Amino acid sequence: MAVMDSKKADATQASLHRIFTVPEAPDSTLGRIEKEISENLNAFLQTHIAAREKPLAEIEKDFSCADIPESPSFVSDHTHFLLDKLVAQSVHTSAPTFIGHMTSALPYFLMPLSKIMIGLNQNLVKIETSKAFTPLERQVLGMLHNLIYDEDERFYAQWMHSANHSLGAFCSGGTIANITALWVARNNALRPDGSFRGVAQEGLFRAMKHYGYEDLAVLVSERGHYSLKKAADVLGLGRDCLIPIQTDSDNRVCVDQMRAKLESLKQQNVRVFAIVGVAGTTETGNIDPLDALADLAAEYDCHFHVDAAWGGATLMSNKYRPLLKGIERADSVTIDAHKQLYVPMGAGMVIFKNPASMSAIEHHAEYILRKGSKDLGSHTLEGSRSGMAMLLYASLNIISRPGYEMLINNSIEKARYFSELIKAHPDFELVTEPELCLLTYRYLPARTQQALAISNTAQKELLLDALDDLTKFIQKRQRESGKSFVSRTRITPEKWDRKLTTVFRVVLANPLTTEAILQDVLEEQTQIAQESEKSYPLIMNMTESILANA
Amino acid sequence: MAVMDSKKADATQASLHRIFTVPEAPDSTLGRIEKEISENLNAFLQTHIAAREKPLAEIEKDFSCADIPESPSFVSDHTHFLLDKLVAQSVHTSAPTFIGHMTSALPYFLMPLSKIMIGLNQNLVKIETSKAFTPLERQVLGMLHNLIYDEDERFYAQWMHSANHSLGAFCSGGTIANITALWVARNNALRPDGSFRGVAQEGLFRAMKHYGYEDLAVLVSERGHYSLKKAADVLGLGRDCLIPIQTDSDNRVCVDQMRAKLESLKQQNVRVFAIVGVAGTTETGNIDPLDALADLAAEYDCHFHVDAAWGGATLMSNKYRPLLKGIERADSVTIDAHKQLYVPMGAGMVIFKNPASMSAIEHHAEYILRKGSKDLGSHTLEGSRSGMAMLLYASLNIISRPGYEMLINNSIEKARYFSELIKAHPDFELVTEPELCLLTYRYLPARTQQALAISNTAQKELLLDALDDLTKFIQKRQRESGKSFVSRTRITPEKWDRKLTTVFRVVLANPLTTEAILQDVLEEQTQIAQESEKSYPLIMNMTESILANA
Repeated sequence: MAVMDSKKADATQASLHRIFTVPEAPDSTLGRIEKEISENLNAFLQTHIAAREKPLAEIEKDFSCADIPESPSFVSDHTHFLLDKLVAQSVHTSAPTFIGHMTSALPYFLMPLSKIMIGLNQNLVKIETSKAFTPLERQVLGMLHNLIYDEDERFYAQWMHSANHSLGAFCSGGTIANITALWVARNNALRPDGSFRGVAQEGLFRAMKHYGYEDLAVLVSERGHYSLKKAADVLGLGRDCLIPIQTDSDNRVCVDQMRAKLESLKQQNVRVFAIVGVAGTTETGNIDPLDALADLAAEYDCHFHVDAAWGGATLMSNKYRPLLKGIERADSVTIDAHKQLYVPMGAGMVIFKNPASMSAIEHHAEYILRKGSKDLGSHTLEGSRSGMAMLLYASLNIISRPGYEMLINNSIEKARYFSELIKAHPDFELVTEPELCLLTYRYLPARTQQALAISNTAQKELLLDALDDLTKFIQKRQRESGKSFVSRTRITPEKWDRKLTTVFRVVLANPLTTEAILQDVLEEQTQIAQESEKSYPLIMNMTESILANA
Repeated sequence: MAVMDSKKADATQASLHRIFTVPEAPDSTLGRIEKEISENLNAFLQTHIAAREKPLAEIEKDFSCADIPESPSFVSDHTHFLLDKLVAQSVHTSAPTFIGHMTSALPYFLMPLSKIMIGLNQNLVKIETSKAFTPLERQVLGMLHNLIYDEDERFYAQWMHSANHSLGAFCSGGTIANITALWVARNNALRPDGSFRGVAQEGLFRAMKHYGYEDLAVLVSERGHYSLKKAADVLGLGRDCLIPIQTDSDNRVCVDQMRAKLESLKQQNVRVFAIVGVAGTTETGNIDPLDALADLAAEYDCHFHVDAAWGGATLMSNKYRPLLKGIERADSVTIDAHKQLYVPMGAGMVIFKNPASMSAIEHHAEYILRKGSKDLGSHTLEGSRSGMAMLLYASLNIISRPGYEMLINNSIEKARYFSELIKAHPDFELVTEPELCLLTYRYLPARTQQALAISNTAQKELLLDALDDLTKFIQKRQRESGKSFVSRTRITPEKWDRKLTTVFRVVLANPLTTEAILQDVLEEQTQIAQESEKSYPLIMNMTESILANA
C-alpha cells in the first residue's frame, strides 16, 4: 500500500468532503438513473438487465481483483461500471415471467419510501437511535400478532409497548426467525430449576445432566425448510435431533407417524421440546394439519412452532384463511414480509403467542438495552438493525387487509389455472397440486407416459433417470435464455414409489403474471426439450422401443 | 374481519394493479420528497425531524392500534402521516452534533445506489436470484480478506470464487458475524472424530461425552461486546462459558491474567476453544494486544477471533494500521461496514483466514445450495439476504483506500482534539483517552475535584453517586432538547478504584462534526448541569461543606 503524495491527498480530501455534502445533480448519471427508476422501474430493469445470461465464469472475471482501489473513482464512472457489469448481469426478479422463486414485483411506493428509510439510517437496536421507529415496529408486531391470534384490544393495550415483554421480533428473514423460535423453545424447556440456573446461563451439557434426558429432539415434516437443520446445528442440538416425519401424498406431515415417534422417543427418555408445523412448504406450498399438531404439542408438552414464512400471509385472505386453521394455537409463528407481504428483501418476523415467552432469551448491556428500557435489542438475535418495519407498516396501511386478500386470492387462483393447463396438456405431468400458489410439474411426453405404464423395472428406472436429466436441461436452458424462469427441486412423489424425482417448481405470487405467460412457459419448455442432444433422443428411442415391443 | 362488497372489491382491485405498475408522478407528495432527499438530504432531515423530543409515551399513542386496516390509504395521505408522526419523531443520526452512537452521515451517492439495490431486489442466498451479485459479494469479502491478511494474488485467484470454499460471510451486522465466528470455532473444536460425527451432527451433549471435557469456555476482555454473551447462549454453551478477563487502565485485556485463566482452566479439563480479542471496544474504543493474544491462542490451541466490528476499518489507514498489529494472525475477524465504512445499517461481515474454515457450518438443500454450487447461502447463518454488498463495493471504489484513510485519520485526530479540550476545561474530567475515535468523560466541577481529593470514604461515595445521577440527567436532557447528542455508559475507571461510574460516551466518526460543535457540546452540558434540581445542588453543597471543613 503506497503512501499518498500531498497533492493527491488534497484532492482526495476535497472530494471526500464533497461526497458527504454535495448531492448528485439531477442531470448526472446517477440523477438520470434515479429518475428512470422512479418513472418506470420495470422499463429500467428491462433496459439494463441483459436478456441472455453470461456464463458465471465470465461474470466472475469482472469481480476478481482482491485489491481495494488506491485511487478514488468518479461516481459517474463507477455507476456506468455497475450498470454494465452488475445490473446487466443481475436477475429480473420482478419480471412477470420470473415464476421460479419467492421474489415478486414490488409496489412502486416502496422505492421512494425505502429511500427515506435509508436516508434516516435508524438503528432499531435501541430507542436512542430509532425513537418513533421503535413503537412503530412494536405496532407492526402487534398487528401480525392480531392477524394470527386475534386477541382483544385490552391485550394489545397491555402488552404491545410493555418494556419487559415482546410480541415477537423483526429480523432479516425466516431463517433467523426460525432460529429465534427454537432458541426460545429450547431455553424454556431447559429453564432454571432449583440450583440449576437454566440452559441460557449454564449451557446444554449441564442442562442435560440436570434434567437427566437421554437426548433432545424437534419433530418436523420431511418437507421442513433447511433452516431448521441449521437451527439445530447452531443451537447445539445437532442436526440429528431434527427428526423428519414422513408426509402423505399431499406433502402434509402424517400425524399418526408423528404421534408414534413422540411416543417412542418418550419411551427412550428423549425430550421432544418442539414440534414444527409447516404452513406453506418451500417446495410444494402445502400446509400441515396444524390443529392436529397443536393437539399433539399439548399432549406431549412441546413448544408448537409454525413455519409460515411463505404461507402466513394467507391469513390476510378471509377466503383462504381456513387453510391455516390451528395456527392460532401455535406458541410461535414465522412470517416473512419479503415474501407474500410484498416488501423488499430482508424482512422476517417471528411472533410469540405469549408476551412473556421471549424473556427466555433476554439480554442486557451497560450502554444500551438497560433493564426496563424499551430497546428492542434486548429480545432479538440480531444487534443493529435497519428500519425495515416501516416499509411493512406503510404497505399494511396503503394496501390494507382487503388489498392483500386480493393479492393472495389471485395468486392461489392463478396457480389453479396453471395446474389445469398442465393437466390438460398431453406432454406434461402435474406432480403436486397447488394448495397455495406453488406447484410442481415436469415435461413428460404422452407416449413416454404410455411407455412407463408398461415398462419393466429396469426400463422404468432408465426412463425416469433420463427424465430427471431432461428436466434439469430444460430448467437450465430456459433460465439462460432469459425469457422466463422456473426453478427446480427434487421430491419423492407417491405416484413414482417415492423415488427422488426432479421437477419444475413454480411460485405464482407476482400479480403481473398473466395467463398468457403461463401458456408461453409450457410452449417454451416443449421446444427446449427437443433441443436436448442427450436425454431427449434417449427418452424418445426408449419410449418407441418399449411401445413397439409391447 | 368484514367481507367486502363487490363495488369496494372492484375499486381495491384497480388500485392494486396501479400500485404495482404506475409510478408516482414527480409532483406527487412522494415525488416531491424524493426530490428533496436527492437534492439535500441534510436539509430534508433538518426540516422534517422535530428538534424537541416528544416523550415516548406520547409517540406510542400514534402507534397503538393492532388492527390491520380494512380500507386502503392513499399513498399521499399515508406519506403525510409518516412525515408527521414517524420521520418527525425519528433520530437525526447523521447530524454532525449526533456524536453519541456509531451511526454517521452517509456519502450522498449511496441514496440513489440504495434505490437501485432495492429495485433489483436480489436474494443473495443463491445465484439463481442474484447472479452477478454473488461474484460481487465474494469479491468484497476477498477485498476485506486482503485488507486483513494481505495474501498474494494467487491465493485470491484460487479461493475467492471457489465453490467449496468461502473467505467469509456478509451478514446483517456484527452480532451475526460474531455468532458465526464462534459457531465455526465450536464446530471445528468438536469436529468429527472416529465414530463421533461432530457437534454439528450429534449436538453438544454427545460431543462433550465423546471428548470428555468437563466444560467449554471462551475468553474475552471484560469490555467484550454483549453479542458474545448472546452467542454463548444461542450456541448452547451458556453465558457462564464466556469468561471475562480484567482489563488494564487503558481498557485492554490483561494478557497475564488471560494466560493464568487458560492455565487454570486447562488444569480443570475445561476446553477453551476460542479467545476473542477486541479491536475497538464498544464503550471506549480500545484495542487489545492482539499479537500477544495470537501467541496465547497458538500456545493453547484456541481459535483466535478478533471482534473488529468498530476498529477494523482502521486497517484502511496506513498511519494507524499498526494499532491493530496481530490481527493478521486471527482465525476470524468481524468488521461492520455500517460503522466506519460508511454504508447504511445492515452490513456486517465475518472474514476467515483459512478458506476451508467455514465448511464446519456448511448446509445444503434440495432446491438450492446444492453441493458444488456457488450459492452463498451454504455458508451463512442467515438465509435470504439483500444485495447490501453492492453498497460497500461502490464505496470501496468511489472512496478508495486513501479516501477511507483520510476519514479514519480525521476521526482519530478529532477525538484527540476533543480530549485536549476536555482536559483543558476545569469542570470536566476525561475518563478514557481516545485510542481510536471514542472517548468517555464527565462533568466534574473543579471545586468538586478538590473536594473529592480530600473527602473521606463516606463523603466520596455520596459525591460519586450524585455525580452519576448528574451525568444521567445531563445526557437525558441534552438528548431531549435535540441540539446535540452524546450517549452514556458505565465503566470501572482505575482512578476511582474500579467503582462502576456513569460517563458520557462520544464517537467522533461523522466527518461533518467540527471543532466548534465540540466546544458547544461542553458549553451546553455545563449549562444543563445547572438546571438539575436535585443532583447539582447536592453536589455543590457537599463540595462547599467538605472544602469548608478541610
